[in-house]
Amino acid sequence: MEKTKVGIIGLGTVGSGVAKLLLDHGDRTARHAGRVLWLEKAAVRDLAKPRGCDLPDGILTDNVDQVIDDPEIEVVAQLIGGIEPARTLMLRLLKAGKDVVTANKALLAEHGPEIFDAARELGRSVAFEASVAGGIPIIANIGQCLSANQITSLHGILNGTSNFILSKMHDGDDYAAAVSEAQRLGFAETDPAMDVDGTDAAQKLAILAHLAFGARVDWGDIPRTGIDTLDVVDVRFAQEMGYKIKLLAVADLVESVSGQGGLELHVSPTLVRAGSPLAEVSGPFNAVRVDADAVGRLLFYGPGAGQMPTASAVVADLIDTAVGRTKLTFQTLELWSNRAARVSAAAYAGARGRFYFRAMVDDHPGVLAKVTQAFGDHDISIASVLQHEATSQGDPLPLVVMTHETTEGAAARACQEITRLDCVRTEPVRMWVRD
Amino acid sequence: MEKTKVGIIGLGTVGSGVAKLLLDHGDRTARHAGRVLWLEKAAVRDLAKPRGCDLPDGILTDNVDQVIDDPEIEVVAQLIGGIEPARTLMLRLLKAGKDVVTANKALLAEHGPEIFDAARELGRSVAFEASVAGGIPIIANIGQCLSANQITSLHGILNGTSNFILSKMHDGDDYAAAVSEAQRLGFAETDPAMDVDGTDAAQKLAILAHLAFGARVDWGDIPRTGIDTLDVVDVRFAQEMGYKIKLLAVADLVESVSGQGGLELHVSPTLVRAGSPLAEVSGPFNAVRVDADAVGRLLFYGPGAGQMPTASAVVADLIDTAVGRTKLTFQTLELWSNRAARVSAAAYAGARGRFYFRAMVDDHPGVLAKVTQAFGDHDISIASVLQHEATSQGDPLPLVVMTHETTEGAAARACQEITRLDCVRTEPVRMWVRD
Repeated sequence: MEKTKVGIIGLGTVGSGVAKLLLDHGDRTARHAGRVLWLEKAAVRDLAKPRGCDLPDGILTDNVDQVIDDPEIEVVAQLIGGIEPARTLMLRLLKAGKDVVTANKALLAEHGPEIFDAARELGRSVAFEASVAGGIPIIANIGQCLSANQITSLHGILNGTSNFILSKMHDGDDYAAAVSEAQRLGFAETDPAMDVDGTDAAQKLAILAHLAFGARVDWGDIPRTGIDTLDVVDVRFAQEMGYKIKLLAVADLVESVSGQGGLELHVSPTLVRAGSPLAEVSGPFNAVRVDADAVGRLLFYGPGAGQMPTASAVVADLIDTAVGRTKLTFQTLELWSNRAARVSAAAYAGARGRFYFRAMVDDHPGVLAKVTQAFGDHDISIASVLQHEATSQGDPLPLVVMTHETTEGAAARACQEITRLDCVRTEPVRMWVRD
Repeated sequence: MEKTKVGIIGLGTVGSGVAKLLLDHGDRTARHAGRVLWLEKAAVRDLAKPRGCDLPDGILTDNVDQVIDDPEIEVVAQLIGGIEPARTLMLRLLKAGKDVVTANKALLAEHGPEIFDAARELGRSVAFEASVAGGIPIIANIGQCLSANQITSLHGILNGTSNFILSKMHDGDDYAAAVSEAQRLGFAETDPAMDVDGTDAAQKLAILAHLAFGARVDWGDIPRTGIDTLDVVDVRFAQEMGYKIKLLAVADLVESVSGQGGLELHVSPTLVRAGSPLAEVSGPFNAVRVDADAVGRLLFYGPGAGQMPTASAVVADLIDTAVGRTKLTFQTLELWSNRAARVSAAAYAGARGRFYFRAMVDDHPGVLAKVTQAFGDHDISIASVLQHEATSQGDPLPLVVMTHETTEGAAARACQEITRLDCVRTEPVRMWVRD
């Protein structure tokens, strides 16, 4: 049986998982690939560091050049996180004639044009299934399985850490307690900022938007709100009204007023109708709902992170690359600068939808009239209002308003006007609502 | 741009959808394939029959040889249902050097060995994404995206007609009314026998079992029960106990007593815990839950039938075939006779699980004791019992029993014993229960 020599750079959690799959399950990998995937070298920074996998003698090295300069290694899983030295290594690997597999979404979101252009110019490929939604093969499904379709909408729960924290908040925890629990169970980093502030989800959404829509968007330009400012009070109100709050990454193809298509992109905590498939994705799981013109609606659900789910995606990419499928697919993927954008980002202010508001208001006569007037001033119809009796006199009361469909811009302006009212204590909380 | 000439045989519902996608969306197909997919010929039986798509002059023919003998046509979508002449055409196409794409699961389930062997011998490929689960790309996901895994379990809702009928029965319709409604809306054929008796689901399950487990099973050997004998009474009892009834196609890899792996396969109406993802798949939709050793649990959900969802799968296969991906994948797929079976079917009697029973019993003292004794005689623990008061004296009463885990064989024997009791009117209804 033919053999493809494989290298790994970085033996952290994911890298160890990849090594395990290649070493412990070489037989089935060979069966599925029709050739042996032979782990030749694995480069790490510190040889002394304990690892989760036993490697046969001669594989481990602390000299990355032994991977890059080995002419027999054809495919490399580059599994170092962060931007540098990952970016430099990636370019060196491509120049050395290797096809690369990576899970590094931050690197692709930040330096996609440079990396993909280099690969195309050098006749190499970059596979990145593991960069979005962990074990869910969403890249292959969008880039290959749905190729007969125009995708019209992607709604994703793309950050497992946030989703775990939100699930705990729906069980009654406040934000801080939920974060501690996520950290204790290994679902959140010591510093979970990139996960909970929407950065991670926006980077993944940018990759999906390139692939699915031929958009050319920088992840940093995607309007995003995280869950790090979410108050458990709003989780309770959402539940009371039959919704769950999810950190939703949204890309919707819309007709603009001018008749031109535009792509609405944002990441934000969103009230999703309880019982709908996305609302019921709980714990550290991910899900992506895809609407496309021929197939209709599909939903993909699975583990969004973790050692073996991510390793599953990396090894599938290694197999596809060794077999030659990646090379065929890579040429036609719409990634970054190889083609002009087919769609531009639509102005966020024009995005249409329903909204949830919560303002802390004084318990005085006329307050509801003033607040609802502010919505009327911006042509926003109110769908429902929720105000409970005060528990102690003089305290500000939460006033919750759900609107009918309006625009993000009108909702923002109404919010500003409400903030300026004397009877309103702080800027209202505002979230998207999806049925 | 390079061009791949495509032929279609059969312009029924799916064929017309495929023609529409190729003709109306040639630009995006070309973009996703990196080459033009050019519809050269479409062969039909009767030129006079009205069709759902307009074809440019010169494409339509009633002579199938014009497709088979055209040396420039490289790929053919063979979209005739049933066994003959589909089988003969398939073999002729392969011998004529064409790669074939098909949606005909009955043909593959019945003549898979002959067709796949012929394709392999002739160096051709057969793509069949549309044969299972309509628009859900489950074949590509199992055959390619999960190649790093050993799949351990597949639970699928694979027949949209049955699922639609079941949904209506959960809304209160009896079986006959639900079937009429399904027919009225186009979700059931005039003769829905193959859909509602479990044949269709068993054929699809056989294809998935070959692909995912390297099993070599004839679909006719898969134990199957349809929904055609389901009483709405059992739907109501299931709902009362927090379950929904789904026609589940199950393939579970299990350790047998001898330590050898075995594959448990069956299709049967099953009580699935309400709120679980499979229970909430309603209407004509399909879903497949996949458990695999590296990735964990994934769920794929989408339209299981219909013109454009099925056409989406066929055109994805046409693109994969034209691009060359199918050729690479096809060689390693574990389909029928190209390799020895890696797993045998486990004896159905040994399959473990929980069961639902409903017996119609006389309203006499001592009946519950006799029935529960019959379970005890076969070492079956009872988890819960449900018996409502009689509404009119003398009528037999439904007695519902949910068991703890036991084997299918013990459940069947207990059922026989209960049937023989004087106080029991007819053979009890028996269904699997899944949490």
